[in-house]
Amino acid sequence: MWDTLWTDIHVATADPARMSEKDGYGCIHNAAIGIENGKICWIGAAKDLPEASQPLARNIYSGHDLWMTPGLVDAHTHVIYAGDRSLEFAERLKGVSYAEIARKGGGILSTVNATRTVSENELFDMTVQRVLRMIAEGTTTIEMKSGYGLTLKDELKQLRVARAIGAALPVRVHTTFLGAHALPPEFKDRQDDYVSHLIKEILPQAAEEKLIDSIDGFCENIAFTTDQIERLFIAASAFKIPVRLHSEQLSNTGGTRLAARYGALSTDHLEYVVEDDVIDLADAGTVAMLLPGAFYFIRETQMPPINLFRKHNVPMGLATDCNPGTSPSVSLTGIMNMACTLFRMTPEETFSAVTRIGAQALGLQNVTGTLTTGRAADMLLWDIAGPHELSYWIGGKRPIQRIFDGKPLPVV
Amino acid sequence: MWDTLWTDIHVATADPARMSEKDGYGCIHNAAIGIENGKICWIGAAKDLPEASQPLARNIYSGHDLWMTPGLVDAHTHVIYAGDRSLEFAERLKGVSYAEIARKGGGILSTVNATRTVSENELFDMTVQRVLRMIAEGTTTIEMKSGYGLTLKDELKQLRVARAIGAALPVRVHTTFLGAHALPPEFKDRQDDYVSHLIKEILPQAAEEKLIDSIDGFCENIAFTTDQIERLFIAASAFKIPVRLHSEQLSNTGGTRLAARYGALSTDHLEYVVEDDVIDLADAGTVAMLLPGAFYFIRETQMPPINLFRKHNVPMGLATDCNPGTSPSVSLTGIMNMACTLFRMTPEETFSAVTRIGAQALGLQNVTGTLTTGRAADMLLWDIAGPHELSYWIGGKRPIQRIFDGKPLPVV
Ligand SMILES: [Zn+2]
Ligand SMILES: [Zn+2]
Repeated sequence: MWDTLWTDIHVATADPARMSEKDGYGCIHNAAIGIENGKICWIGAAKDLPEASQPLARNIYSGHDLWMTPGLVDAHTHVIYAGDRSLEFAERLKGVSYAEIARKGGGILSTVNATRTVSENELFDMTVQRVLRMIAEGTTTIEMKSGYGLTLKDELKQLRVARAIGAALPVRVHTTFLGAHALPPEFKDRQDDYVSHLIKEILPQAAEEKLIDSIDGFCENIAFTTDQIERLFIAASAFKIPVRLHSEQLSNTGGTRLAARYGALSTDHLEYVVEDDVIDLADAGTVAMLLPGAFYFIRETQMPPINLFRKHNVPMGLATDCNPGTSPSVSLTGIMNMACTLFRMTPEETFSAVTRIGAQALGLQNVTGTLTTGRAADMLLWDIAGPHELSYWIGGKRPIQRIFDGKPLPVV
Repeated sequence: MWDTLWTDIHVATADPARMSEKDGYGCIHNAAIGIENGKICWIGAAKDLPEASQPLARNIYSGHDLWMTPGLVDAHTHVIYAGDRSLEFAERLKGVSYAEIARKGGGILSTVNATRTVSENELFDMTVQRVLRMIAEGTTTIEMKSGYGLTLKDELKQLRVARAIGAALPVRVHTTFLGAHALPPEFKDRQDDYVSHLIKEILPQAAEEKLIDSIDGFCENIAFTTDQIERLFIAASAFKIPVRLHSEQLSNTGGTRLAARYGALSTDHLEYVVEDDVIDLADAGTVAMLLPGAFYFIRETQMPPINLFRKHNVPMGLATDCNPGTSPSVSLTGIMNMACTLFRMTPEETFSAVTRIGAQALGLQNVTGTLTTGRAADMLLWDIAGPHELSYWIGGKRPIQRIFDGKPLPVV
């Protein structure tokens, strides 16, 4: 006898084995899902359910003919921060220059200062408020980056908060060490020394405490060079920690090809990649993680080359990039709409991007991201005409029921 | 003794009498609000509350030092419709041409067909689902247009549903007769006859049933001419019903100047207005109702001339334009973010646009839209750093408590 049986549902599985030229969602109409120990133990058409003289499960739920999808995977966020940048947003719109704002202590370093100042408990409380909003929007797995501490103590604080949120809330958390996010003022004009500090001090300690699931950097003219990023990646290899990279967001500096060489899980932003970069991603099996929220918020006009990713079969992921400076955003379905509207991705592509491919970008493809036997029962019930409607609403649409690890959650 | 007293709040009143060069929100810090019979009977700094030997109100609520704002006014929506256009959205992204979709019965006429087919009760039920989402996002007053019926029976059906929603849900409803939205197939090549039908048959009947608060039209090369719209406006004058107009959305056809001549409450879209149009709006006291949701969704590149509206002191409103074809959108704070990001409006401007100016566009400036003595206690409590944060989040942010007509509503 199973723990749970869901019936009276249509399912969009995001499982490539169920997809066809006509169906990019992997649909099962009039479906049923059996759950044991939080995992899917049976999925298929309801008419194919095993015959039994007694009930198949202890708990039987009707989905009232609504649609069930995998829980959404937000594979690129900077959600752990203190402080507030909304006033800076307002000042920019009133004509205050970025230089003036920086002089007044604004910009990313204001987030760094605020994040350093608060205690671990305070940082947890602030972050929980945002993560609860993400959960309400349908997110069940979240990548959370450090990178606003930039000291041993404060980077560890951010990563511990990420782990604590994974333990406290109904959400899977993947932690990413992003010490190479910005140069802290203490290391002014000593960028290489800072990278050495990351490699020799912070990384070993954080790895020792098992706080790092992957390592990331910001490779850009205004941030870290490919040489510096490569030093970091070599250190990551020594700890057998996978890498990912912010690359080619504002210009082409070669970060994407470097990351591909190190078998990165994902390279992220990618507005300025060229075809050779894309071919390298394809060869490496790296996910192209696209972030239309930041594209929209900073009014970028250079689109990531969707057609090149399609041509070379590079898996496209989508994430909120939730961060206070360039993408204050919590809704993945809102991001799906932006990917369609701004990047002309199809609803099929955006659906895979926030489910299966998002999970792949976190190395969790065998855990979550598709509704398949053996995967976690992280699922969402939606009042929609079909899975294409998830991409349709400006600002997104909320699920009406969330199931995490097999358990139905209170309606938010 | 008052019915209700709110304390421990900061208030952004949207009241011009409280605004200054430094404060475009009309803020009162450490404020209190007294309510009697659903209306604000006292508002000011808590320290100025009348002294009394007994409690000032029967119900006393603490706002926990959060921010209180007026309920939001969505002054341009097509929320009353049946059918679903999300599949059409998906097909467009897969490369199906608009002509092909129209041949398959898609486009606005598919919404007209679906809306004609359903019963009044069915139409009510479908619309309520969307209106509940709007309410959860902070909307307390909604303009609802007809224009998907285009027959006597079906236009009245839409308008009756609007009235029924105003009676059933905690929301103020302003009804707009938009028979001149599109030419129904029955009147093919007989556009003038259709306008006569609107004027002689539908308008008198709907006015008789008191179903019309204002009259609207779609003035555009692909819709109705200025001559046809003027016939409608003349008929409206005879019934003493105010007018508004969809004008200058896709080209400049002179609709805005026509509407100003008839003292329109608002002219809407306005991407293609020129300075002379704007001067006419200023002279007429007409609201410029801007709709960034549609601008974004159809990937328009011609921005409405914000600087001209500023120069001539034309009040700028903002609305969702909630409709299935060009703006599937329910969140006014999401629209505020788009107005800042895409149109470079300031958070002060967007705040007035969805409160005081939205109410003005519906002729409700003495009823709602500002927190002022004598106005309805339609209010929202927000966990924000200040009213500027309402414009900051991509996709918007929800209020944590809503108060309609003085009554706190269940948290959604
Ligand atoms: Zn990022
Ligand atoms: Zn409209």
